[in-house]
Amino acid sequence: MDSRVEKRLGLKELADKVVSADQAAALIGDGDVVGMSGFTRAGDAKVVPMALVERAKNENFKIDIYTGASLGPEVDKYLAEAGVIRKRGPFIADSGIRNQINSGNVYYVDAHLSHNAELVRQGIIGPIKYLILEATAITEDGLIIPTTSVGNSPIFAEYAENIIVELNISHPESLIGIHDIYVPGPQGQREPIPMTDAVKRIGEIGIKVDPAKIKAIVVSEEPDAPSLIVPPDEETQTMANLLLDFFRSEIKAGRLTNKLMPLQSGVGSVANAVLDGFANSEFEDLVVASEVLQDAVFNLIDAGKVSFAAATSITISEELQKKVYGNLEKYADKLCLRPQEISNHPEVIRRLGLISINTALELDIYGNVNSTHVSGTKMMNGIGGSGDFARNARLGIFVTKSYAKGGAISSIVPMVSHVDHTEHDVDVIVTEQGIADLRGLAPKERAVLIIENCVHPDFKEQMWDYYNRAVEATGNAQTPHILEEALSWHVNLAKNKTMKKEVSKA
Amino acid sequence: MDSRVEKRLGLKELADKVVSADQAAALIGDGDVVGMSGFTRAGDAKVVPMALVERAKNENFKIDIYTGASLGPEVDKYLAEAGVIRKRGPFIADSGIRNQINSGNVYYVDAHLSHNAELVRQGIIGPIKYLILEATAITEDGLIIPTTSVGNSPIFAEYAENIIVELNISHPESLIGIHDIYVPGPQGQREPIPMTDAVKRIGEIGIKVDPAKIKAIVVSEEPDAPSLIVPPDEETQTMANLLLDFFRSEIKAGRLTNKLMPLQSGVGSVANAVLDGFANSEFEDLVVASEVLQDAVFNLIDAGKVSFAAATSITISEELQKKVYGNLEKYADKLCLRPQEISNHPEVIRRLGLISINTALELDIYGNVNSTHVSGTKMMNGIGGSGDFARNARLGIFVTKSYAKGGAISSIVPMVSHVDHTEHDVDVIVTEQGIADLRGLAPKERAVLIIENCVHPDFKEQMWDYYNRAVEATGNAQTPHILEEALSWHVNLAKNKTMKKEVSKA
Repeated sequence: MDSRVEKRLGLKELADKVVSADQAAALIGDGDVVGMSGFTRAGDAKVVPMALVERAKNENFKIDIYTGASLGPEVDKYLAEAGVIRKRGPFIADSGIRNQINSGNVYYVDAHLSHNAELVRQGIIGPIKYLILEATAITEDGLIIPTTSVGNSPIFAEYAENIIVELNISHPESLIGIHDIYVPGPQGQREPIPMTDAVKRIGEIGIKVDPAKIKAIVVSEEPDAPSLIVPPDEETQTMANLLLDFFRSEIKAGRLTNKLMPLQSGVGSVANAVLDGFANSEFEDLVVASEVLQDAVFNLIDAGKVSFAAATSITISEELQKKVYGNLEKYADKLCLRPQEISNHPEVIRRLGLISINTALELDIYGNVNSTHVSGTKMMNGIGGSGDFARNARLGIFVTKSYAKGGAISSIVPMVSHVDHTEHDVDVIVTEQGIADLRGLAPKERAVLIIENCVHPDFKEQMWDYYNRAVEATGNAQTPHILEEALSWHVNLAKNKTMKKEVSKA
Repeated sequence: MDSRVEKRLGLKELADKVVSADQAAALIGDGDVVGMSGFTRAGDAKVVPMALVERAKNENFKIDIYTGASLGPEVDKYLAEAGVIRKRGPFIADSGIRNQINSGNVYYVDAHLSHNAELVRQGIIGPIKYLILEATAITEDGLIIPTTSVGNSPIFAEYAENIIVELNISHPESLIGIHDIYVPGPQGQREPIPMTDAVKRIGEIGIKVDPAKIKAIVVSEEPDAPSLIVPPDEETQTMANLLLDFFRSEIKAGRLTNKLMPLQSGVGSVANAVLDGFANSEFEDLVVASEVLQDAVFNLIDAGKVSFAAATSITISEELQKKVYGNLEKYADKLCLRPQEISNHPEVIRRLGLISINTALELDIYGNVNSTHVSGTKMMNGIGGSGDFARNARLGIFVTKSYAKGGAISSIVPMVSHVDHTEHDVDVIVTEQGIADLRGLAPKERAVLIIENCVHPDFKEQMWDYYNRAVEATGNAQTPHILEEALSWHVNLAKNKTMKKEVSKA
């Protein structure tokens, strides 16, 4: 056995389980429910899925795949396009599987990322025949050490009948010790989650499993697919500045201190850019308590702005992968990866009082947010953890540019075509045009602020026209709408490739 | 002093604060933010609000009113109609204030009932100038004992500048001891809520306040406005039976036991009737952990089915008021009233694994639920705690008759006109037509079940027609919709007083 493998395989009785990827892939049966490690392209199994892709060239079979969140191309592109996936949950982001979902070839179950573990416990997800789990090592006492994400792996490992380990020796050994694995017991019999500070560890460094469940170990050296983050531009910088000014006004009002509260920032370029904005600010000793640690978090650690960062996944660019994973010792005492059930748990989020920053796909004048569906029908990405955070955070902030497609689309519409976050869960909205603080406001108060502060000038007159006519038509009701027109901006877009229209002079 | 009052006023230094309702009402200033006790017509202040109504006959003034939930007619009818209320939160149900809201005379801030306390802590609700608080007694050591609800009174009392107590001697003294007041500390500094079982007490029997804040004590003998519950009918009985059979199938699947899990049941006749269905069932040793205890809960205690019931309010019919409050000793060890921040806390709901049953106003074929807005514009009731429970419960169940207005309206529509609970939060739907278990299903799987099992036969062909054409038009996308038609059932209703239309023969 390769000495690098021997070093990582502490539990020696498992040595005879080491097989090829093809042999491991052959264990999976048609119709199986398969759990996989991985969260936003980090810590996912890679070589066994590619062996499944190969196998699918000569064999028809379909499986259901549940993961932490989106995976790299091995599953969410190649395996999806090979027609192997019948059902997929709980999050996707790759255009490969997205196309399969939107053409009816894959059933996609979009879900709050904190919900999956309870569904596994109840057997709604399952029975899980196999878990394919990427590991840094298996310790002498049988702990499986995850790699760059934890996701749902601990709960999958508890409930899966069988486990295939992808022992990935390309991940640094110094990952051992950064995980903090805590799994609540059954509902009605569990204790409070003992976390009162994101910085303090509450669990084990690895996942305890019954070694008898481990049916195969496959050695891998494939790195994580890097994140595809777009660098900040002038408009995301404007949004970051607006948000920093908002935090300053909150400090002035006595509601926050210079340390703010633990920060959660969603996946994506805008949220990442907004976080980047802290680098040259006066804020300090910041704590990140998020799902995913993107590039910005490591830049802020380097800049001495972030003192600790907890999440369930590290998803960074190729450049930063080299820097961080080549010097993980430098970051190790400032990092912690937890199961997504913990990072996204309402109990933890509300107790710690997180500030949550997520990206909206579109939003409406009353503060409802669509995070998932293009024109109400086609899945873009899943809802991910945005609902876990927005509902329970101290401050639920949504960011989006006010326009898309070169100005043909207004990101703010009269009525969203799909609702992921209701008016009850959205505290603050930021576009490059301005900020709307919706807390404590009634729907009509919100509408005036959102239209005035956040809508792009090209759409403002058209929006005021809709709103004013809706107030008139409904006798100034709680939430004025003209149902015949509420979705007409989307209809116009489908027909004329633009949301712009002549404003009727009523 | 009346000996009955003297007996209830343990802290003797407060004796000189006893004043008339008019004198207390005169303390309230124009523009004040006023907190009030009360939750779904229970435990609300009554005589001071009526004195405000009187005062408004000769004086123009407006105040913002925040409460636990809906109040009796003194505030939500008479004071609303007197034009005194500028803004109101977080829940309403009276047609008096509803009309004021829907004609633009009152700003209504609809909110999750677990969210208010955090907003008070942050100063978003506030500064609270006065809290008007109905009390059973004030103890020697200065604890204010609430009456038939707790609601937001503890957090209001902590943050209010001044307190007016309505000492209501018509409530039985045996209410002393049934409250369980626990208030979390500031976010980021608080401990876990130490509740692992709804049955065990975690707090004090009353609300600790600084006596210096108490500026007036007004004696009252006004009873709570009784609940206006409609008795079960054949269709609600059918729905109850469907739900009981569903629980039986869950037991068979090993997911529940005969004791089920703690039950939450929303306000309203349908939810009450469904709960009544347990009376003649084989289920036993049930625990209720809800917002409001309605008539059904007491009937189930009498029947030996419910062993303990915790909530934040007791809202019962006139008949039952006499029976329960005349013999409270009999129920006292089986009852507990907690702050709504605790009864509705995501931390508690998810830890205990509640089964949650709430009423939908309308729902759509993908499982989105509207709880609040008639045709997307006019407020009916608020969202209340339905979101707190549905999102975090082990089982989030929504019940509704499949039709309304004698059959002119289908309660299930292609797209809801307002979303309060998204597809991510709705587990099971029950109408008198049947049940749809949506757990683990993708949108198109849900649609087929909901249309087949739950839609009224009068609307089924029309719904299949919409759905099939939507699948076709979108190339079988994740969530098929035809945006031009998605709200056309509501438009048709407004124009033709019915949602029924000719099905196009495509």
